[in-house]
Amino acid sequence: MTDPELAALADELHRALPGRDLTCDLSDALGHGESQDGGGALPPGFRPLHSRRPFAGLAVTASPQDTELGAVYAALDLAPAGSVLVIGGPATHAFWGERTTRAALGRGVRAAVLAGACRDVSAVHHLGFAVVCSGVTPLAGRRREGGAVQVPLAVGGVLVYPGDLVVGDDNGVVVVPARRAAEIVPALLRALPSALSPDRSTP
Amino acid sequence: MTDPELAALADELHRALPGRDLTCDLSDALGHGESQDGGGALPPGFRPLHSRRPFAGLAVTASPQDTELGAVYAALDLAPAGSVLVIGGPATHAFWGERTTRAALGRGVRAAVLAGACRDVSAVHHLGFAVVCSGVTPLAGRRREGGAVQVPLAVGGVLVYPGDLVVGDDNGVVVVPARRAAEIVPALLRALPSALSPDRSTP
Amino acid sequence: MTDPELAALADELHRALPGRDLTCDLSDALGHGESQDGGGALPPGFRPLHSRRPFAGLAVTASPQDTELGAVYAALDLAPAGSVLVIGGPATHAFWGERTTRAALGRGVRAAVLAGACRDVSAVHHLGFAVVCSGVTPLAGRRREGGAVQVPLAVGGVLVYPGDLVVGDDNGVVVVPARRAAEIVPALLRALPSALSPDRSTP
Repeated sequence: MTDPELAALADELHRALPGRDLTCDLSDALGHGESQDGGGALPPGFRPLHSRRPFAGLAVTASPQDTELGAVYAALDLAPAGSVLVIGGPATHAFWGERTTRAALGRGVRAAVLAGACRDVSAVHHLGFAVVCSGVTPLAGRRREGGAVQVPLAVGGVLVYPGDLVVGDDNGVVVVPARRAAEIVPALLRALPSALSPDRSTP
Repeated sequence: MTDPELAALADELHRALPGRDLTCDLSDALGHGESQDGGGALPPGFRPLHSRRPFAGLAVTASPQDTELGAVYAALDLAPAGSVLVIGGPATHAFWGERTTRAALGRGVRAAVLAGACRDVSAVHHLGFAVVCSGVTPLAGRRREGGAVQVPLAVGGVLVYPGDLVVGDDNGVVVVPARRAAEIVPALLRALPSALSPDRSTP
Repeated sequence: MTDPELAALADELHRALPGRDLTCDLSDALGHGESQDGGGALPPGFRPLHSRRPFAGLAVTASPQDTELGAVYAALDLAPAGSVLVIGGPATHAFWGERTTRAALGRGVRAAVLAGACRDVSAVHHLGFAVVCSGVTPLAGRRREGGAVQVPLAVGGVLVYPGDLVVGDDNGVVVVPARRAAEIVPALLRALPSALSPDRSTP
């Protein structure tokens, strides 16, 4: 599957998400977290900042150095429309807030998934941007250079590569490795009933 | 107190719960967690998946083997109307979702209390079922046999026996040992004022 | 700055909080948690019990002995109107509930910030009182004497002195040491635009 085909598949999935729990189906299709080669569901500590803001897009990754925000800004500078930012870093500090949200919305970025925390939650709520994070704190990282972008990243024990399909809803986040998306996503979309809450197989 | 009398008491308590914080009164009546012989309040990590869905019922327990869902289905097969499922298992995996919710509603089960996680939260919300759990994740346990039902279970450090009275509201969950329900619950119900938010003694 | 001047500054800040994320600006002004001499943002585990209830006021502190509520009642007995109670104690027990909320409202106390848990959440919600805590549980501390009031307190690793300015919103809580308030708060208030969600500098 070419990159534009994968992006088109992410777009189609993004439109199918509202009112469903498709991250659960994707987790089932991936094989219950057995994969040793990347992808899977992030653990329960990763929660949506606000509910009912599902998203699907291809990962742009940022690995901050210590508590420095440089890698986040660098990732924002190269993130294409429809992408999802995946950001490492410690849970003690906020790596996302109003300024980054406005920049992301300006570029058409769909969501931010953070190992760290978020802040400016009133502004993020008003702006309508999807954030999944490990917590909320007023304490921000520092505006310094450092860190790396578009590198493989371990987030909550799940390995994420740039270009992987990252999908989030009120259940959390699932990372579908790029090379497995063609096998999993079209089959899921074909099986979708039009109604909400289709009968699920597990649990 | 016979089993039918205890079930009738649970029903009466269930109807009295909305708009109050009766789990707090029950925790006080049990004696502030001092009991060494079962029961008490579950710790703060056990949270209602959705607010304003209080419940009271007699425990049917399921102790999954590892991450296998067999015990959950087995407990659903024998749970009577008005009961509350109490399910062990690790917090890393979802042991409850849309399928189990539909099965529980079909049997008249009132709630599920899980040491593990829940998923399919949009569907569970739409279906209106009460779930208390330790987290949310798309990653489900496996559909395999194994585990045990109607065994004593330690949930969050609290010992639960089948048939114990399990009560939940927005404050969390309290387990009232079956042999103490006759001493505690009728006195609580008699003391209830008709208004919301009666003056509380502690804290 | 005299105590009445500091209280007037807290009042002015309190009125400016709604719809903004000013705890984030205050955390930035304090210098990103570097201070070794008290104050700073509480870590992500401290969450508002209900959203959209921001507050600012001068700290009255209570350090419970073990799980005993005596220090909380003693602090309530001396807390002036416009103050914020800051209460230590273990996260396993509730040190705040309906009774303390009613007493606090009767004195004009603005909020309670707890290292421990809260309970009676339906009543606290109906009464409209601001609580920031580390969790919720029906299990209360005991109504016994003991503990200390108006002592320095470490809450979530942040040192709080009686009379410090304590500010909370949906992002969490920031403690501004009393001696730094005159340097930080008037400058923040002067810089406020009248609109919601001003452009933020970090992140």
